[in-house]
Amino acid sequence: MRGALLYAPGDIRVEDRRDPTIEKPTDAVIRLAATCVCGSDLWPYRGIESVDGPAPMGHEYVGIVEEVGNAVSAVRPGQFVIGSFFASDNTCEICRAGYQSSCVHREPMGALGAQAERLRVPLADGTLVATTDTPSADLVPSLLAASDVLGTGWYGATAAEVGPGKVVAVVGDGAVGLLGVLAARHLGADRIIAMSRHETRQNLAREFGATDIVTERGDDGVARIKDLTEGLGAHSVIEAVGTQESMMQAIRSARPGGHVGYVGVAHDVQLPGDELFFSATHLHGGPAPVRRFLPELIDLICNREIDPGKVFDLELPLDEAAEGYHAMDERRAIKTLLRP
Amino acid sequence: MRGALLYAPGDIRVEDRRDPTIEKPTDAVIRLAATCVCGSDLWPYRGIESVDGPAPMGHEYVGIVEEVGNAVSAVRPGQFVIGSFFASDNTCEICRAGYQSSCVHREPMGALGAQAERLRVPLADGTLVATTDTPSADLVPSLLAASDVLGTGWYGATAAEVGPGKVVAVVGDGAVGLLGVLAARHLGADRIIAMSRHETRQNLAREFGATDIVTERGDDGVARIKDLTEGLGAHSVIEAVGTQESMMQAIRSARPGGHVGYVGVAHDVQLPGDELFFSATHLHGGPAPVRRFLPELIDLICNREIDPGKVFDLELPLDEAAEGYHAMDERRAIKTLLRP
Repeated sequence: MRGALLYAPGDIRVEDRRDPTIEKPTDAVIRLAATCVCGSDLWPYRGIESVDGPAPMGHEYVGIVEEVGNAVSAVRPGQFVIGSFFASDNTCEICRAGYQSSCVHREPMGALGAQAERLRVPLADGTLVATTDTPSADLVPSLLAASDVLGTGWYGATAAEVGPGKVVAVVGDGAVGLLGVLAARHLGADRIIAMSRHETRQNLAREFGATDIVTERGDDGVARIKDLTEGLGAHSVIEAVGTQESMMQAIRSARPGGHVGYVGVAHDVQLPGDELFFSATHLHGGPAPVRRFLPELIDLICNREIDPGKVFDLELPLDEAAEGYHAMDERRAIKTLLRP
Repeated sequence: MRGALLYAPGDIRVEDRRDPTIEKPTDAVIRLAATCVCGSDLWPYRGIESVDGPAPMGHEYVGIVEEVGNAVSAVRPGQFVIGSFFASDNTCEICRAGYQSSCVHREPMGALGAQAERLRVPLADGTLVATTDTPSADLVPSLLAASDVLGTGWYGATAAEVGPGKVVAVVGDGAVGLLGVLAARHLGADRIIAMSRHETRQNLAREFGATDIVTERGDDGVARIKDLTEGLGAHSVIEAVGTQESMMQAIRSARPGGHVGYVGVAHDVQLPGDELFFSATHLHGGPAPVRRFLPELIDLICNREIDPGKVFDLELPLDEAAEGYHAMDERRAIKTLLRP
């Protein structure tokens, strides 16, 4: 089969890879309907995370089940399924508490490489959620978004305790931040402030439900959030970048007692304990337990109540994955969908 | 009046200070029934926090109202009152959300010096809570504990989402940690693991409700907590120290999705963003909004349901404050009560 490999920073190639097979009785193999490039794929692509190439890439996937192991009972060949970036058993105590991305048996899907024609999915019963029917083609991008960026934005909003009566600030205008806006809208926030300086992203933020746009960053951005909240700060802040600046911007934008939901994978972040202490904020986040939200998100998408697939503003054949990475790296594209 | 002043690290003196007076119509002046030395007073005493001496010391107080300003209506002369370490209006949006220690008009009581015979209390209506009757003398230590260490331990437990069905770990065996144990017991925790290597403190922890004692610290302490929780970690961790080691011990002792309530004033703490991210814990804490809990805590004490005053294992006349500090610095005393 064809699959994307990262050889070195900036060097993505689509090559022939060995077809995946059932290795454990709990595995499934799926044929991908679509896959995509994640903001977190850009960390190794940019050389900020080390890479021991050639490494399979990609952890977002939707597709048709082709084969299942003997122990798989919840999904069957022919079903259209969605999973997320950690395989999880969905039965352990951590999963049952809603933290499937920290499942005691979790396996990272990125190591298997979802930017490919086929994918082995471990712990298929716990990991995969099937749609009721095969979805129409125009729903596929939104279902693919549920695999990571929608689920991650949703988790950011949930971790930030977004809800009615709340003022929400969103730090980061990538796909996750934009879908954090969508989640905040769906969860009933009163006011949603998107922090973005890019017009196309601002427009999509507004379309997803942002009521205000703040273009300033860092301390200036914090000052604008304070201006908009009677000097107090936002009740809820969704952090969707993962840098020192974005984390501090998020914490400083929250009022005392407010909630910061952080979902940008942290890189070189050191949080100063004394400032955090006196901020009196709540901090929660980490790798999103997307599996917790998948059934609800799939329903919302299939009922056409939300349209998260709009974050895909570039679509390419899998064989052109390199250009998909390049466009996102240069911020020419918000998110690239790849068709195997 | 007599009052304690810190001249330089290790140099506490009790001297004549000017009697406080009503300076603003919202002030009250109280005559102290008792005051005490806080673990946080030891930071400047040890020279870890800089001090521009001579500085008035102390921020824990109970006593009788002597005089009130024109705008004070909630308390009156002759009443026995308890307040906490930040004066707060208790009416602003932040106070109403339960974060009185971040009140938009807050004033730190430590700057006024509660280790004295009399004390001016700003924002008296918001800050002070009166008992129904003048309490009997044996209740005074417990009411004094409510002024800070009990309220702080209670907040730590609340921030850590302690409740029925939860396993709780407590990092720190000072007065706040011990009263975190008491709070966890009262809030219905299933199992309470106190981390302490001091026998007298272990005994008091057991008396307050600890079901297990862990004597190891750092990574060894974390390993013991994991052993006691099927490898998962505690649901709730109360952090009551404020050092890098104690914060990391607390975060690592919590399971994914668990809650860390941190109330030790952070000193030279830098939290690694990547580890925090993948811990998937909730982090909440800061300066305890003791005022939120005072009415409930006063009731529990006056009804003799809890006896937090047991943390005072040394009682001295105010004039001997220096020995009170010295004994706590050497960990000969858990907490020193001073009688003006």
